Amino acid sequence: MDRIAYRLADIVARFGGRVEGDAGTEVNQVATLDSAGPLQIAFLTNSKYRKQLESTNAAAVIVAEPDVAATKLPRIVCDNPYSYFAKLSALLNPLAVFAAGIHPSAVIGAGAKIAPSAHIAAHVTIGEGVSIGEGCVIMSGCSIGANAVLGENTRLYPRVVVYHDCVLGNNVIAHSGAVVGADGFGIAMEAGAWLKIPQIGRALIGNDVEIGANTTIDRGALDDTVIEDGVKLDNQIQIAHNVRIGAHTAIAGCVGIAGSATIGRYCRIGGSAGILGHLSIADGVEISSFTLISKSIREKGVYSGIYPFSEKDSWLKNAAHLRHLDEMATRIKLLEKEIELIKGRD
Amino acid sequence: MDRIAYRLADIVARFGGRVEGDAGTEVNQVATLDSAGPLQIAFLTNSKYRKQLESTNAAAVIVAEPDVAATKLPRIVCDNPYSYFAKLSALLNPLAVFAAGIHPSAVIGAGAKIAPSAHIAAHVTIGEGVSIGEGCVIMSGCSIGANAVLGENTRLYPRVVVYHDCVLGNNVIAHSGAVVGADGFGIAMEAGAWLKIPQIGRALIGNDVEIGANTTIDRGALDDTVIEDGVKLDNQIQIAHNVRIGAHTAIAGCVGIAGSATIGRYCRIGGSAGILGHLSIADGVEISSFTLISKSIREKGVYSGIYPFSEKDSWLKNAAHLRHLDEMATRIKLLEKEIELIKGRD
Amino acid sequence: MDRIAYRLADIVARFGGRVEGDAGTEVNQVATLDSAGPLQIAFLTNSKYRKQLESTNAAAVIVAEPDVAATKLPRIVCDNPYSYFAKLSALLNPLAVFAAGIHPSAVIGAGAKIAPSAHIAAHVTIGEGVSIGEGCVIMSGCSIGANAVLGENTRLYPRVVVYHDCVLGNNVIAHSGAVVGADGFGIAMEAGAWLKIPQIGRALIGNDVEIGANTTIDRGALDDTVIEDGVKLDNQIQIAHNVRIGAHTAIAGCVGIAGSATIGRYCRIGGSAGILGHLSIADGVEISSFTLISKSIREKGVYSGIYPFSEKDSWLKNAAHLRHLDEMATRIKLLEKEIELIKGRD
Repeated sequence: MDRIAYRLADIVARFGGRVEGDAGTEVNQVATLDSAGPLQIAFLTNSKYRKQLESTNAAAVIVAEPDVAATKLPRIVCDNPYSYFAKLSALLNPLAVFAAGIHPSAVIGAGAKIAPSAHIAAHVTIGEGVSIGEGCVIMSGCSIGANAVLGENTRLYPRVVVYHDCVLGNNVIAHSGAVVGADGFGIAMEAGAWLKIPQIGRALIGNDVEIGANTTIDRGALDDTVIEDGVKLDNQIQIAHNVRIGAHTAIAGCVGIAGSATIGRYCRIGGSAGILGHLSIADGVEISSFTLISKSIREKGVYSGIYPFSEKDSWLKNAAHLRHLDEMATRIKLLEKEIELIKGRD
Repeated sequence: MDRIAYRLADIVARFGGRVEGDAGTEVNQVATLDSAGPLQIAFLTNSKYRKQLESTNAAAVIVAEPDVAATKLPRIVCDNPYSYFAKLSALLNPLAVFAAGIHPSAVIGAGAKIAPSAHIAAHVTIGEGVSIGEGCVIMSGCSIGANAVLGENTRLYPRVVVYHDCVLGNNVIAHSGAVVGADGFGIAMEAGAWLKIPQIGRALIGNDVEIGANTTIDRGALDDTVIEDGVKLDNQIQIAHNVRIGAHTAIAGCVGIAGSATIGRYCRIGGSAGILGHLSIADGVEISSFTLISKSIREKGVYSGIYPFSEKDSWLKNAAHLRHLDEMATRIKLLEKEIELIKGRD
Repeated sequence: MDRIAYRLADIVARFGGRVEGDAGTEVNQVATLDSAGPLQIAFLTNSKYRKQLESTNAAAVIVAEPDVAATKLPRIVCDNPYSYFAKLSALLNPLAVFAAGIHPSAVIGAGAKIAPSAHIAAHVTIGEGVSIGEGCVIMSGCSIGANAVLGENTRLYPRVVVYHDCVLGNNVIAHSGAVVGADGFGIAMEAGAWLKIPQIGRALIGNDVEIGANTTIDRGALDDTVIEDGVKLDNQIQIAHNVRIGAHTAIAGCVGIAGSATIGRYCRIGGSAGILGHLSIADGVEISSFTLISKSIREKGVYSGIYPFSEKDSWLKNAAHLRHLDEMATRIKLLEKEIELIKGRD
């Protein structure tokens, strides 16, 4: 494809910031400082990588004010080079356009309302009564259950499944293998066997949510599972029934969130972390990777619980004592008493 | 859809228990105490939520004997309100019915036997020699490999894959993205490269098993992988080759079970737990979330191994000592000797 | 299917080693010592299972030199019985053959080049400009994005997704639900909302790579994500953008590898382990299951960081002290000083 080039002057007219050096410099792609070549613009988000500015072959760079003198290259100076780069990259790399229309191999249920500008690809199945808004792109092999509702400009990559009655807002992106609205894990023991508890809630996904590949979001048991606007979910995340995730929270890969947990807004959860059921996490909480949250968190802050790794022999030798920590604590207390006794005698 | 209403008298005639209050009260849906409205029946499984009985707008409630006086609402009194609710909800929320027949876009292999009452949806692929029992529902985009066997009333949600030769019993439910019978992870190193070990066993799934969304159950390497009757698997679980899971065991999301592990009957395994290969776990064992089981468990009981989380600064400060626990233990022992020496001198 | 039988003499002529006992003994399948019957050959990889040789009903066995006298059965003697077994099993269990050709329900984009010997199954979607090499098998429901390239003899099981522009080498195997090239998790906060950072790199998969069921490998943000030749990935693994995995590294199920991590060659990573972003792991490193690698590893070796499990009551009692380890260390130091003082006084 022929790439469109933009002058730095055009870019700052669009996104703000100012140009130092030749404002007529043209760029048509973003790149890292290391790999950038002619017509490419790189960015510096951290002053400690300034040294890479010396050797870059980029045509231009995006820098923050403190780094403005660190290069003689044509540059855009702005407050937040990373988000500036995000916006510029979106301009230079527009999403693939999919023609409006329904592929003949798609199977559309009775009463489904599909906006004229939507793209329904090959081998898609759309259930009865489904509503699909303007500009939606439903790629090959997706399956949308009866009476589900998709807002506008929502994009499902190949083989996404949305179960019946679930709702996705506008500008949602769901990557391949994501499953929205499967039954939550609700079982009751009776007479030596598990009874299934029908999962009659829905999964409600707000606007501007991104759902990673093979991530699963279960429908509610009675009430709904809710993912608020602007939430970003990485791959292979499991969100159980009746979870609520507050707006603009970002969750890294492989996290598991158990049933009825309520996560605040603007939280950040690291990879492979876990949150037990029925807990409540305050707004703005940050959870480290590999950390299990086993009780509610009421205060904003960073929380961790990771076993530090070491060479196996060292780990073995040290970890063996974990089963005797309580005894160690008792022995220390005893030693303290002995010392007090000895000192008292003098 | 028009919901069917049942009188409390009809319900206890069907499921047992007794009615207090107006047995002619009609209900057509279950709900939580908080959200229930007219025509809805809620339930109280834990006396500590009794307070919610005061403010509920439910038409009726299900309670256990000790809570019978805690409300004046029409109520069903029974031994186990949770399993009672499960059965009542199943009555009020029957599974969606799918018409018998094979969608014209489905591709059916030579020699496949599909029971007349089975539903085969759009874009399904069924391999040669497959057998599908009465009442099965195979939703859109599923793929069933050659010579696989499905019992009766088994339900595969969209995009489930069953590999060749695998067997699913009766009343199995598999949610979207589940993969049954992919190759186990068998490799042998030779001359600097891994050789693949053909995985020639099968995955055998018993009756009444539920398999969550994006859960994977590998086929056996030589012998079979076996999931016994009534096992309930949540989402995103990985079950490796030659694992055997005993009847009625329930496993929460994101658990990984390594090759040739044998899990007993009626076990409960918490989310993101792990079980190493070739281990044996007794019947009735409960494993906490985030716990790695690294050796066999011969006794029924509850087992845990979770790093307790705290604020990051506190965690950092404390966790640093884990690499020196052995030295700490040595120093305590030394102190004890010193004290003995000092005391001995007196 | 009629199985082909081979004489032990034919087998050693093909794969090396020597026969003890009747070299005319015929076998047509591999099996475990426990389950082997007539016409089946078992193997002994570990002398500690020698006892099973006594009771096996196998027609023949594969053993290493030290075990040659442990049975009177016809036997193949070789250096590495496990890899010998792998090769013999591959001979006895050839991959299913799929006829060349494109199923009429497959949808093929403009300009796609599909080698004549490739098999394209039902309900497959292949984007514009895709290239598929000789001998490839693309099973039902796979989706291959525009301009992706697949080498020769690569095999995608049902419902694999390869995003646009990604490259898979020769002899790659990808199991059902695997997703190659979905967007990495790149977001930048601005004005209270996350901006998406376009993911414009690719995922490049080398030759002889195996990708497990529901494993996800994200495309690069700017540069590419790279999986080198001979890497073996189990199920449910998450590989983030710009990760590089060195040749012949093997990774067990449920592992998460964060963005821009670089893993060496011939590493072995245990199940549910994690590797944080931007780290570097040396060649030949072995990481235990459930271990989070939180800083770079420069030396070959085995690394672990696992919380040892115990009965829940014991765990609770001991784990409570983890939040006070630093205080415990301080108290020990204080005790040591006191002892020194007491000893000094004498």
